[in-house]
Amino acid sequence: MEKKPDIIILGVDPGTNYLGYGVIRTSGNKAEFITHGVIDLHKITDPYLTLSEIFTQLTHIIETYLPDEMAIEAPFFGKNVQSMLKLGRAQGVAITAAIQRQIPITEYAPLKIKMAITGNGSASKEQVASMLQRMLHISSDEMPKHLDATDALAAAYCHFIQRQRPESLSRKYSSWKDFVSKNQDKVKG
Amino acid sequence: MEKKPDIIILGVDPGTNYLGYGVIRTSGNKAEFITHGVIDLHKITDPYLTLSEIFTQLTHIIETYLPDEMAIEAPFFGKNVQSMLKLGRAQGVAITAAIQRQIPITEYAPLKIKMAITGNGSASKEQVASMLQRMLHISSDEMPKHLDATDALAAAYCHFIQRQRPESLSRKYSSWKDFVSKNQDKVKG
Repeated sequence: MEKKPDIIILGVDPGTNYLGYGVIRTSGNKAEFITHGVIDLHKITDPYLTLSEIFTQLTHIIETYLPDEMAIEAPFFGKNVQSMLKLGRAQGVAITAAIQRQIPITEYAPLKIKMAITGNGSASKEQVASMLQRMLHISSDEMPKHLDATDALAAAYCHFIQRQRPESLSRKYSSWKDFVSKNQDKVKG
Repeated sequence: MEKKPDIIILGVDPGTNYLGYGVIRTSGNKAEFITHGVIDLHKITDPYLTLSEIFTQLTHIIETYLPDEMAIEAPFFGKNVQSMLKLGRAQGVAITAAIQRQIPITEYAPLKIKMAITGNGSASKEQVASMLQRMLHISSDEMPKHLDATDALAAAYCHFIQRQRPESLSRKYSSWKDFVSKNQDKVKG
């Protein structure tokens, strides 16, 4: 049987204080931890230099780990329009860095990522980190200080799961009748 | 007397349907119309291809007209968080395209631009276009179909005015006392 090629997935959690990133190598149904970290932006006061730093550093990460695909944690809702504009800019820059290297991008909402990793959409960042540590066999020494890094790793892992079972996270039902017809085993007769 | 070098200003109005751009050459207190147009994005359904197109086309415009500075129309408030996120991404990509060519960026709120061009912060797009046509001696044939293009040109022209009189549009006062001390002539004794 032909062996499937390894796929390197880069997960990114773009923020304007810290941009988290995490890299895994996947081979069939196996995923292996490669690295994770943060781009530290919190001391840069100029907003354009912040964006520039995201582009430069993320391009460097892409050139170092040569990911085949990128998964990005992308909240679609936020507290206010100003913070969403700021977040949108950071996302736009991160997306551009990947586009410029012809890397396909998939976005995941935070709830979806938490659900994929822990089975619970309202899991804490610590619970996500703890679950990832076990699933990817990351030693305590290798665990990051910043939860932005594990959030990024979680996005990468979520994409790994999604690639294996595209139905699992994006299944949609148009109605209760539709749900019933697709889930005869889950419905009491 | 030494002649000041010409400064090419690129104005950009980033949207996700049309991205407007306008270029002027300024020499001292004179401004000359070079070009304007839109990057047509409205038929691209994939949001990443839209961002990619912004980056590629804007980079091409930058390489063609070699601007020294970029002025960007940037609303800071919007109807809802979703539209601001979308707008932020487009802005982030436009900013990245300029950063990658070491072009300094200045942002102007739409109200500030209208104020600079027409003296009225609530002027219509048509009024802004009409005023620009007169000030930059643009023939009717050269006037664009899309008002996104004149909006971009207006951003460039606003930056030209701002460069001449930096105080005029960005004057800030830390307190009423501060205002009084700086404006003795405007305060009745």
